[in-house]
Amino acid sequence: MTTPRFGAGIWHFATYLDRYATDGYGQPRNIIEAIDIAGQVKELSVVDLNWPYFGGKFSDAEIKTALNRNNLSVIGITPEIYTRDFVKGAFTNPDAGVRRRAHELITDACNVVRFHKADYVKLWPGQDGWDYPFQVDYGTQWQRSLDGVGQLASENPDLKFVIEYKPREPRVRMSFGSVARTILGIEKIGLPNVGILLDFGHAIMGGESAADSAQLAIDHGRLFGMDVNDNYRSWDDDLVAGSLHPLELFEFFYVLKKNNWNGVWQLDQFPFREDSVATATHAIDFLKAAAKGLDRLDIDALQEAQNRHDAISAMKIAQKALFSALGEAE
Amino acid sequence: MTTPRFGAGIWHFATYLDRYATDGYGQPRNIIEAIDIAGQVKELSVVDLNWPYFGGKFSDAEIKTALNRNNLSVIGITPEIYTRDFVKGAFTNPDAGVRRRAHELITDACNVVRFHKADYVKLWPGQDGWDYPFQVDYGTQWQRSLDGVGQLASENPDLKFVIEYKPREPRVRMSFGSVARTILGIEKIGLPNVGILLDFGHAIMGGESAADSAQLAIDHGRLFGMDVNDNYRSWDDDLVAGSLHPLELFEFFYVLKKNNWNGVWQLDQFPFREDSVATATHAIDFLKAAAKGLDRLDIDALQEAQNRHDAISAMKIAQKALFSALGEAE
Amino acid sequence: MTTPRFGAGIWHFATYLDRYATDGYGQPRNIIEAIDIAGQVKELSVVDLNWPYFGGKFSDAEIKTALNRNNLSVIGITPEIYTRDFVKGAFTNPDAGVRRRAHELITDACNVVRFHKADYVKLWPGQDGWDYPFQVDYGTQWQRSLDGVGQLASENPDLKFVIEYKPREPRVRMSFGSVARTILGIEKIGLPNVGILLDFGHAIMGGESAADSAQLAIDHGRLFGMDVNDNYRSWDDDLVAGSLHPLELFEFFYVLKKNNWNGVWQLDQFPFREDSVATATHAIDFLKAAAKGLDRLDIDALQEAQNRHDAISAMKIAQKALFSALGEAE
Amino acid sequence: MTTPRFGAGIWHFATYLDRYATDGYGQPRNIIEAIDIAGQVKELSVVDLNWPYFGGKFSDAEIKTALNRNNLSVIGITPEIYTRDFVKGAFTNPDAGVRRRAHELITDACNVVRFHKADYVKLWPGQDGWDYPFQVDYGTQWQRSLDGVGQLASENPDLKFVIEYKPREPRVRMSFGSVARTILGIEKIGLPNVGILLDFGHAIMGGESAADSAQLAIDHGRLFGMDVNDNYRSWDDDLVAGSLHPLELFEFFYVLKKNNWNGVWQLDQFPFREDSVATATHAIDFLKAAAKGLDRLDIDALQEAQNRHDAISAMKIAQKALFSALGEAE
Repeated sequence: MTTPRFGAGIWHFATYLDRYATDGYGQPRNIIEAIDIAGQVKELSVVDLNWPYFGGKFSDAEIKTALNRNNLSVIGITPEIYTRDFVKGAFTNPDAGVRRRAHELITDACNVVRFHKADYVKLWPGQDGWDYPFQVDYGTQWQRSLDGVGQLASENPDLKFVIEYKPREPRVRMSFGSVARTILGIEKIGLPNVGILLDFGHAIMGGESAADSAQLAIDHGRLFGMDVNDNYRSWDDDLVAGSLHPLELFEFFYVLKKNNWNGVWQLDQFPFREDSVATATHAIDFLKAAAKGLDRLDIDALQEAQNRHDAISAMKIAQKALFSALGEAE
Repeated sequence: MTTPRFGAGIWHFATYLDRYATDGYGQPRNIIEAIDIAGQVKELSVVDLNWPYFGGKFSDAEIKTALNRNNLSVIGITPEIYTRDFVKGAFTNPDAGVRRRAHELITDACNVVRFHKADYVKLWPGQDGWDYPFQVDYGTQWQRSLDGVGQLASENPDLKFVIEYKPREPRVRMSFGSVARTILGIEKIGLPNVGILLDFGHAIMGGESAADSAQLAIDHGRLFGMDVNDNYRSWDDDLVAGSLHPLELFEFFYVLKKNNWNGVWQLDQFPFREDSVATATHAIDFLKAAAKGLDRLDIDALQEAQNRHDAISAMKIAQKALFSALGEAE
Repeated sequence: MTTPRFGAGIWHFATYLDRYATDGYGQPRNIIEAIDIAGQVKELSVVDLNWPYFGGKFSDAEIKTALNRNNLSVIGITPEIYTRDFVKGAFTNPDAGVRRRAHELITDACNVVRFHKADYVKLWPGQDGWDYPFQVDYGTQWQRSLDGVGQLASENPDLKFVIEYKPREPRVRMSFGSVARTILGIEKIGLPNVGILLDFGHAIMGGESAADSAQLAIDHGRLFGMDVNDNYRSWDDDLVAGSLHPLELFEFFYVLKKNNWNGVWQLDQFPFREDSVATATHAIDFLKAAAKGLDRLDIDALQEAQNRHDAISAMKIAQKALFSALGEAE
Repeated sequence: MTTPRFGAGIWHFATYLDRYATDGYGQPRNIIEAIDIAGQVKELSVVDLNWPYFGGKFSDAEIKTALNRNNLSVIGITPEIYTRDFVKGAFTNPDAGVRRRAHELITDACNVVRFHKADYVKLWPGQDGWDYPFQVDYGTQWQRSLDGVGQLASENPDLKFVIEYKPREPRVRMSFGSVARTILGIEKIGLPNVGILLDFGHAIMGGESAADSAQLAIDHGRLFGMDVNDNYRSWDDDLVAGSLHPLELFEFFYVLKKNNWNGVWQLDQFPFREDSVATATHAIDFLKAAAKGLDRLDIDALQEAQNRHDAISAMKIAQKALFSALGEAE
């Protein structure tokens, strides 16, 4: 395997706040500062940018300059359809005016994608869903989700749209909540330029086996992107990749390789209390070792064990490959 | 609303064992005894029968006699594709011979369905899945699931097949694990006689809103059956319906009514340590009150609140209807 | 039962932000505005105030004026030991200077408690814990938690300190994470003026039966306060009380009554997207009905059923009492 | 570090059944057969035996003969206080006669402990708890748990009693449900010969950090035993140790070593569908590598990182030690 290219959401290098630490986990940073910090991570090639650019008014050209000096290019643009205007939903907002505003915002983001020659518009409808029983009409809710995405995809056939599903947060229940639900919706939309961005952490917090989710998305021709991190399986902790569930992450990469899926390996981590460069670097070290481990896998023996559903033998082969590569890492 | 008809899995009236109480939670009962106990539950009309009939060798005619004397008819037959022969899977077993055996068993069950003039063959592939990362090839696993069900459905076009999905147990990860995954598979199979049996408890243990799951299955024309119970959202405790999550169960019924879904309201409870007649009766009392509550719902006001996503107002209307009906119950 | 007094955390009437909606779920409000909104909730008697007062510089006297005009008094003061300075912990911060700062902040909060003649200082050490394996020395971590609380309690023997435990959030793992852990710590501290504030939602998200937790805290003489809300059992959603788990909440109140625990029934809800007055009012309506339901409970019959561990009979009695009271509510 | 001694529950080598595969996951085995299979696992030194011995009538002497020929000795005896007689509880059964029977059974087990010169009586009160709100009086329930254990410990001062806590299963809620709750109870009992057996899987399924739980039990002088396995954090899957959460398991061992805790490293795995010898051997291979990894840990650097709560640096040190040892394993 050639080493994959590595990427990260630019928010990895921002600072955060939450409902308790309302003054933030550190000094605010604007997107230019975040890009310059991202540039310190060796082997980072691409970034996903929130849009509108955070922390000030910046032109696309200014952003590009900052990216260039850090040898970074743009893989995707994430329009912020989960901020104040959209807390009751973007595509599914009860107010038609807000739905229109979401559409306009994303339409504008399409031009930013074109400017940066990015791979896709990333849709993460984190506020689209519900909190309580009886709050919404589920049929309407789902139809609006599909209409919203479908309209964008058909109006912008030159671009790809990726939906990043997640079971919950910030909405207590999200409409695009699982891999199968999202594929089902995409098939209903029926356009070739809509796919999935599979976040490893979102999959495992939803009780999925992320490798199985990847296979399913690939079999439907819809795996357009991915990112990784880790968590304790019940919430999107966005911890450093490989820290808690190394074997499952390795299996996720294995399924990608097996299917000749050659996209960027991206990070979606939130180092609330850690140094962001050290956190990204540590994750990439894990990813590089995992890539090396894939080359060491005794594929024939593995598949032979899988043919018998022999978990212990299969795991032994996988662990050997992964741990030996990790053990050698610096 | 006319009062719905009530049903139950016949196992509700059996005794149980588990990996610890291997000598069982009570004296073993055979299926005839279970039917006679079921007959003591007033307002129970139909049962779902495990097959082969448990606890002895019984002819279909003997079963029918027992059912008749208890005024019960059969809604479905559940072939036992999760016992010793199938612990590594029925449809997805690594051994082609076992997959064939599963096919034969279910084919035989089809005749039992015909004998009893039941509505469907119920497929609950509880052992089809995996336990460990790297244990199976996910693509093969899923394809075999679809092939197995598809073959049966195409060979028996006179019958309906319902798949009861569940996230886990006994298999640590089940292939038919969520509503969307199951619909996706059914759409792939592409036959009209395959649908979903939606278990309320399986939905909520998987983080689904059961009412939303029902709407989705209905919108795909695939809601062929349902059953109810309750649990603490992380495991299939099969507790008495309405005990823990009354409002969500009420919403589930509301979505059925709203869509004119008129099937049987079934119980899938496991009263390990409780009297099974008392447990079934208590559940049906809840269900009857819920049905009465549906009639009281101020639908216009509810939909108006839902149009605004006004959770508090919508809930107030729903609670009023449900609790007032429950408060009057004997 | 005389109707209990009702209270709320003043943050119930603030607006919120989170890591995604960084611009907030609404226009920022200062604490005076929040108090004036709280005043619109009929039957609200007391509030718990964050300190330092949010949204501006306000003197204790100004706050008191605002409270007075809304007929509110103060039950507790919550020093903000979870904001930027303390994101790596207050009592357990690795930096001795920060630990000292936390001590000083809380010491200052003690005077605010005295000024308002409140019942207690509320300690909610939401940042005290860890995120990753190997991150901390657990013995040191726990000892510092106990030392920090113990020092405050011994320096301020005229005041009560309540610890509000919670399994997680914002810290991925919190030191005071369960009722038993917190009691164990309090017993180790060994001072009479340290107790627990039991949050119903924190209990159930941790897999506790909140009524059992209350009994345990009471049996140790440490239940100093409580608040209620609801969630989907895996995260602190802070939804409206009674919405999802009415029977468990009713049981919680039952245990309080049974033990003659006569404190305030407080709300700790976060109506991110709902009207805060409507949300508080709806919760209080539930609480009033629950209080009425307690009066209707056939205690003798209930205890007789409990003596036999007869779940169905006991539940029937409890449901009857609760639902009939709820059904009558306006 | 000298290599630890390894042990296993003898049930590791039995076959299982559950509520679905009621005919079992394989041919039944008696305890003698299980011992002979255990004997095939190289480096297994001790076993924990269920009592009464399963699968037939066997004298203590016959068991001893079987153990001797397999070079195994007994670490503990687990009286079966969770079978049919005790499904409504052993210590907390509502029926005083059943509570007495539990006492007698365990008293008899004490003599088996003496016969085998085992280290302890293991109490695993898996049926002691409740399923539903309002089912039990929590105060009575907890008092009976403490009385039952306390009486045994005071009647048998020559023996040690270990309580293996677990959040749930088979009971939906277990009385001894967490490490802190169990310590709290043990402190209340106040006898020196009652301690905890800490099961790694039970800790993580309850949301505990197992290493923290170990430290807490050690600090209270109550860590009398331990066993390991793995699971997906929400249920006691009893999968092979190290498969899913290697770093957390390594940290658990680290805390034991740091505190000079020198007991046996035991397995509590349920290889439902796997070969039991291969499963045990694979786990022990992991454990041996982990032991080697402990020797490689740069303790000074680790503690320095922990002093700063520097998660990334600490993890890097730990991962390096563990993965390099695992990478070299055969």
